[in-house]
Amino acid sequence: MLSEELIKKLTVSNENKIVLLVMDGVGGLPFKDGKTELEYAKTPNLDKLAKESALGLTHPVGVGITPGSGPAHLSLFGYDPIRHLIGRGILEAAGIDFPLTKQDLAARANFATKDDKDIITDRRAGRIPTEKNEELCEKLQKEITKIEDVEITIRSGKEHRFVVVFRGEGLEEPLSDADPQKTGLKIKYADALDPKAEKAKRIINAFIDRVTEVLKDEKQANTALLRGIAKVPPIPSMEELFKLKPAAIATYPMYRGLARLVGMDILKVKGETIKDEITCLKDNYNKYDFFYIHIKKTDSYGEDGNFDSKAKVIEETDKIIPDILSLKPSVLAITSDHSTPSLLSGHSWHPNPFLLHSPYIRKNEVSRFTETECLKGSLGIMYAIDSLPLMLASAMKLNKYGA
Amino acid sequence: MLSEELIKKLTVSNENKIVLLVMDGVGGLPFKDGKTELEYAKTPNLDKLAKESALGLTHPVGVGITPGSGPAHLSLFGYDPIRHLIGRGILEAAGIDFPLTKQDLAARANFATKDDKDIITDRRAGRIPTEKNEELCEKLQKEITKIEDVEITIRSGKEHRFVVVFRGEGLEEPLSDADPQKTGLKIKYADALDPKAEKAKRIINAFIDRVTEVLKDEKQANTALLRGIAKVPPIPSMEELFKLKPAAIATYPMYRGLARLVGMDILKVKGETIKDEITCLKDNYNKYDFFYIHIKKTDSYGEDGNFDSKAKVIEETDKIIPDILSLKPSVLAITSDHSTPSLLSGHSWHPNPFLLHSPYIRKNEVSRFTETECLKGSLGIMYAIDSLPLMLASAMKLNKYGA
Repeated sequence: MLSEELIKKLTVSNENKIVLLVMDGVGGLPFKDGKTELEYAKTPNLDKLAKESALGLTHPVGVGITPGSGPAHLSLFGYDPIRHLIGRGILEAAGIDFPLTKQDLAARANFATKDDKDIITDRRAGRIPTEKNEELCEKLQKEITKIEDVEITIRSGKEHRFVVVFRGEGLEEPLSDADPQKTGLKIKYADALDPKAEKAKRIINAFIDRVTEVLKDEKQANTALLRGIAKVPPIPSMEELFKLKPAAIATYPMYRGLARLVGMDILKVKGETIKDEITCLKDNYNKYDFFYIHIKKTDSYGEDGNFDSKAKVIEETDKIIPDILSLKPSVLAITSDHSTPSLLSGHSWHPNPFLLHSPYIRKNEVSRFTETECLKGSLGIMYAIDSLPLMLASAMKLNKYGA
Repeated sequence: MLSEELIKKLTVSNENKIVLLVMDGVGGLPFKDGKTELEYAKTPNLDKLAKESALGLTHPVGVGITPGSGPAHLSLFGYDPIRHLIGRGILEAAGIDFPLTKQDLAARANFATKDDKDIITDRRAGRIPTEKNEELCEKLQKEITKIEDVEITIRSGKEHRFVVVFRGEGLEEPLSDADPQKTGLKIKYADALDPKAEKAKRIINAFIDRVTEVLKDEKQANTALLRGIAKVPPIPSMEELFKLKPAAIATYPMYRGLARLVGMDILKVKGETIKDEITCLKDNYNKYDFFYIHIKKTDSYGEDGNFDSKAKVIEETDKIIPDILSLKPSVLAITSDHSTPSLLSGHSWHPNPFLLHSPYIRKNEVSRFTETECLKGSLGIMYAIDSLPLMLASAMKLNKYGA
């Protein structure tokens, strides 16, 4: 695992194009007929491509570590996922496609119930319906737009959840959660965990008081808890580090948000299907030299433990491989951010299948793009953070190190 | 290789049980009929288990590095063997099963011969017989029990070797050896290599003078050299780091000592055989969630260059595999701390065969638990320090990293 600083020194810009196709959570475990989803799916195009590619496996963060989407994607984009932490509030804001700036402080918030002695009696306000949430957020946004010089944006989520973004000068971390963590305790305000966070603390706590005031006639949702209060992490852009002109093609907001954090242009996909994503790739192919294409549903079905549907999404993805290849990218990499085995109905620590298609690869004797075949691949077992340097090298975008 | 701090943040406690079976030095090199000891031994149970497990190989410390038992075990237990150094004195004390505390300063000592001008003429006192050593240690212990407020414990070893443990307030490292390193030089006292070690220096040097005084009528063993003077390293316990309730089953004192350093409970084994160890496992199975079982003789015979006997110990170990499996641990890992090829008659740098049995593993096409088959395993070649995170993950004892 090389440092971002070293890679930065070596990168050069050229016309060669890299396509990174991420089948979210595609890696699996034996489940049906002793097969993984990749083994079970019929994938003639991926099979053919595998035989002409270099295969391998990648640990998203470290051996045995199950990553969330944030660190797993940072690794794929060439960033050290231990060094760069994405706060929960930032991820939530990314998850609703909020265009964050470096000034912003974001928090995930819950509507909650307090009694007349300011004791929190329900941290989720009885899980109010989403429609009620939307109504309350609209009301709050109308009443609370600014505190001091800080602009406030409120966006509703599902049930009791919403997101608040504070935008203004001098808002700094770290702050404690404004959440007593359990019921029966008093409203807890945020603490500044460093003197530089004093202004942020003042604004956030004034916000909580304003919310409580505006919602005073509500029976259930009459206050708010704020957690994961965080700034956009100071991540250098992919352009700065790798001299790439990168674009993201993703139908789910969270992944657009993650891509935005590393400076990718977010392309508009007309529609929701994988085919729509490939149409978007074709339409924008001349404007960028790095494309991140995100397929969400392999992960969603894995999370549901729905083996058959996950396998079907793999088959659907297989069908668009010729379309990508027809664009003749210098490098095509296909992998996942982490594994989501249907067997576990959740993310797991198992390494990602990884496929690298380029003219400059060593041969391997493989027949398909599966976990077991990837084990025989010429790339071996690597760390995911090494994927991007490998793509850059294969696209002739990395200079020699030393004389 | 992730830091202990990160793993600590992710660990959770649950009821799932992990059994780590360490066949000390089991990894080998081709020697007889072109086979290693594992290849030569008849191991029907391990063969069957291998086919249902994930195999791999682990570097104890780093590629090419031959480790001692201390660092090799620290890695297996999830500790960075470069960061945590176990002083030689501490290892010696552990090796005689001495129950060390955090106050203790331990030294490995030699009986030595000096002339009447205090010149060391034999650093090993002519390798006096062990019986003589025992007699002298008894005499010394009777005469020297305390210096200032420091309790002194003397334990005999083999030939000229013994161990001294100093127990009291304010005994600190670092100290130089009290050993001129070669004959013909004067008695050398310990030096404090830091002002905080002044008290320890005073006590140790007073101890050397007292020994010399008590032994003044001896012809050969009339003084002592003290080396590797060290405190118990400040290693966080496995409970603190990994939220495990760990127990050690080992017939040799050194390994009980190492396990004690990381906070394991040391279980009493009735007898000396591998079967006795498994009886101990069964008797204590409900009380712990992590068991370290140590098989010594694979290493001992490897050190002797005794290929046939090492292979026999492997066969003996093979017989108890069904007993362990009948307990249905969530995770069973089988490996060595380091390799001890009969060909080399000593520890070596070759990676350890590693077997992980759990419901959450990827398949591999293997037929046996041998070095060559492990190379085809789905775990690949890892570092030994990653073994414990992998066991924890497989036992669902590691939370997701990041959102």
